[in-house]
Amino acid sequence: MTKKFTVTPWKVEGEIDYEKLIKEFGTEHITEKLLHRIEKHTKEPHYMLKRKIFFSHRDMNWILDEYEKGNKFFLYTGRGPSGHTHLGHLVPWIFTKWLQEKFEVELYFQMTDDEKFMYHPKLSVEEANKFAYDNALDVIALGFDQKKTFIFSDIDYAKTLYKQAIRVAKKLNFSTVKSVFGFTNDTNVGMIFFTSVQSVPAFLPSVMKGKNIPCLIPHAIDQDPHFRITRDIAPKLGYYKPAAIHCRFLPPLTGPHGKMSASATETAIYTTDSEEQVKHKIMKYAFSGGRDSVKEHREKGGNPDVDVSYQWLTFFEENDKKLEGVYHAYKNGDMLTGELKHILIEKINSFLKEHQKKKEQAKKVLDKYILKD
Amino acid sequence: MTKKFTVTPWKVEGEIDYEKLIKEFGTEHITEKLLHRIEKHTKEPHYMLKRKIFFSHRDMNWILDEYEKGNKFFLYTGRGPSGHTHLGHLVPWIFTKWLQEKFEVELYFQMTDDEKFMYHPKLSVEEANKFAYDNALDVIALGFDQKKTFIFSDIDYAKTLYKQAIRVAKKLNFSTVKSVFGFTNDTNVGMIFFTSVQSVPAFLPSVMKGKNIPCLIPHAIDQDPHFRITRDIAPKLGYYKPAAIHCRFLPPLTGPHGKMSASATETAIYTTDSEEQVKHKIMKYAFSGGRDSVKEHREKGGNPDVDVSYQWLTFFEENDKKLEGVYHAYKNGDMLTGELKHILIEKINSFLKEHQKKKEQAKKVLDKYILKD
Repeated sequence: MTKKFTVTPWKVEGEIDYEKLIKEFGTEHITEKLLHRIEKHTKEPHYMLKRKIFFSHRDMNWILDEYEKGNKFFLYTGRGPSGHTHLGHLVPWIFTKWLQEKFEVELYFQMTDDEKFMYHPKLSVEEANKFAYDNALDVIALGFDQKKTFIFSDIDYAKTLYKQAIRVAKKLNFSTVKSVFGFTNDTNVGMIFFTSVQSVPAFLPSVMKGKNIPCLIPHAIDQDPHFRITRDIAPKLGYYKPAAIHCRFLPPLTGPHGKMSASATETAIYTTDSEEQVKHKIMKYAFSGGRDSVKEHREKGGNPDVDVSYQWLTFFEENDKKLEGVYHAYKNGDMLTGELKHILIEKINSFLKEHQKKKEQAKKVLDKYILKD
Repeated sequence: MTKKFTVTPWKVEGEIDYEKLIKEFGTEHITEKLLHRIEKHTKEPHYMLKRKIFFSHRDMNWILDEYEKGNKFFLYTGRGPSGHTHLGHLVPWIFTKWLQEKFEVELYFQMTDDEKFMYHPKLSVEEANKFAYDNALDVIALGFDQKKTFIFSDIDYAKTLYKQAIRVAKKLNFSTVKSVFGFTNDTNVGMIFFTSVQSVPAFLPSVMKGKNIPCLIPHAIDQDPHFRITRDIAPKLGYYKPAAIHCRFLPPLTGPHGKMSASATETAIYTTDSEEQVKHKIMKYAFSGGRDSVKEHREKGGNPDVDVSYQWLTFFEENDKKLEGVYHAYKNGDMLTGELKHILIEKINSFLKEHQKKKEQAKKVLDKYILKD
């Protein structure tokens, strides 16, 4: 049976076959060899690499070739600010922060408030723009280097971005965006244009510094269609094709498949949620890999591979040994679903307590991170 | 026989039937009654109105209704800066300057350097942007009120414009721009988006001043498709539909039909041309309504209605009596084509001498006219 799934920048649905995505999108696996090559520079591996949460890439070897020649890259990632930040959004940012630290490189962080406004029928310009700065606090709270991190809202940074976006747009026709994104005659002209704006940060530092600088984009795999276009056009404008490294999606609480949606508030945990909300959501909604009865569970064991609480731990519990312990205890029936859920609740709440404190502190330094025209 | 002609924002060709355009575009004639109503406020009529160079409009009566109620309008017009300004471009600007003076209103003048860059394969961002400021000097040279005139380049004013353009873009789909402009799958996504940017100045002063202000757009009829879209969308954003008043095209030197093109340098006269160039172009290229021989011309007379030199005089010779004198002398054979050409050369050269002096002076005050984010 072929399982159907959809992965586009605006829709992720179904049971995602990541192997198939690699083939369809034409990206590459992160091999053991590549892992070792990265480790040579970072000293330690990141748990998201070891666990294949980051599972795919484009041109990572070239990025390392250049780096080894002394030609440093910069990082580029972003966020579509249509609401509050949820835990799924943090996944690539946590990894990006690690890359910044280990390679000592700059990060350009794009808030696509323009696109979110144009995509969501009921979202106003003001709301999308406000979320851009709220979400920026979540980025800063993760500990990005103030001197090396440049965050910008597409709307507020338009003077700089538009001048470059029209250079991309001139080389991109409707046929291409139609086939890459599945646009139709009903698609609004802003969405048709928008990918040009998302391409800009991949070469903007090269424009600003007057020299060609390699770019590495860590991002969730659903954004790949945008960067396929960027990779096609950047060389036509005289810049390097950006490299990319791709992560899987944090599954929604309610099931092991798909992507957590910012618009389904019950199935996602937000960085703004209280301890009580976290507890309530996980207890009520987290899809269980447990058996029908305690007796059966003790006898046959649970299934951590479909249990969402366990899956979430693989994204947020850095300690391999702890994670392994949970895996076996759950699988052999020593640990019940309720206990597993409590481990996750504890983990998330202790993370969020710290995050919320840092987010509050971030308000004081927000301005120092914002890139202005 | 049906004569074929094309009028789009990017192409004007063939023998234009302006009556047919009024029907096809769905605009209205400027009637005697409307002329009188305008005269009530301006005291004197403008020769371009009397001579039906401005021949069509949308909602002029509404503009006057509002004006008479004390609700002043603002003017909006623009220029696509793909090269130097030629005399054809000056036609709507001369009339706009008169409107500003008579009604004491503000003018927003858009330089669409973004669009010209995206449309012309070989034009660079820098070139289009440079022409924007060169062309702005021609605008200023015409005598627009420094306190009431706001000129901006789309590229340099993008911070303000883009935020409003995405509001338009959200309400406009590919079907519409496809049918209005004849776009295809090969059209670049920048051109598809662009009309959103051209819509913005029609309501930007309302955004800036926080109240709904009527807008009147004097422009050559080929730009009407853009403003049909603006009129459709502005009310959806809570603003008035802009009114418009439309002029014909100054014919190319080489023939009585079509529109003078900035890219066919022999058939156009630029504001940068020297006295000698003007003389040479008119003597060599100006399409003549004269007879094959002097003898025949003296006997049967010339045809001022197809003679381009005469046609040009109708655009630039303000004095009705002088113009009438030329018309009859040429028509009854008293005046030869050479003599008529010399009258035009004299007129254009004395205009350009003054214009070039004022353009030079305009450099000193350019900055005071430019609208900045």
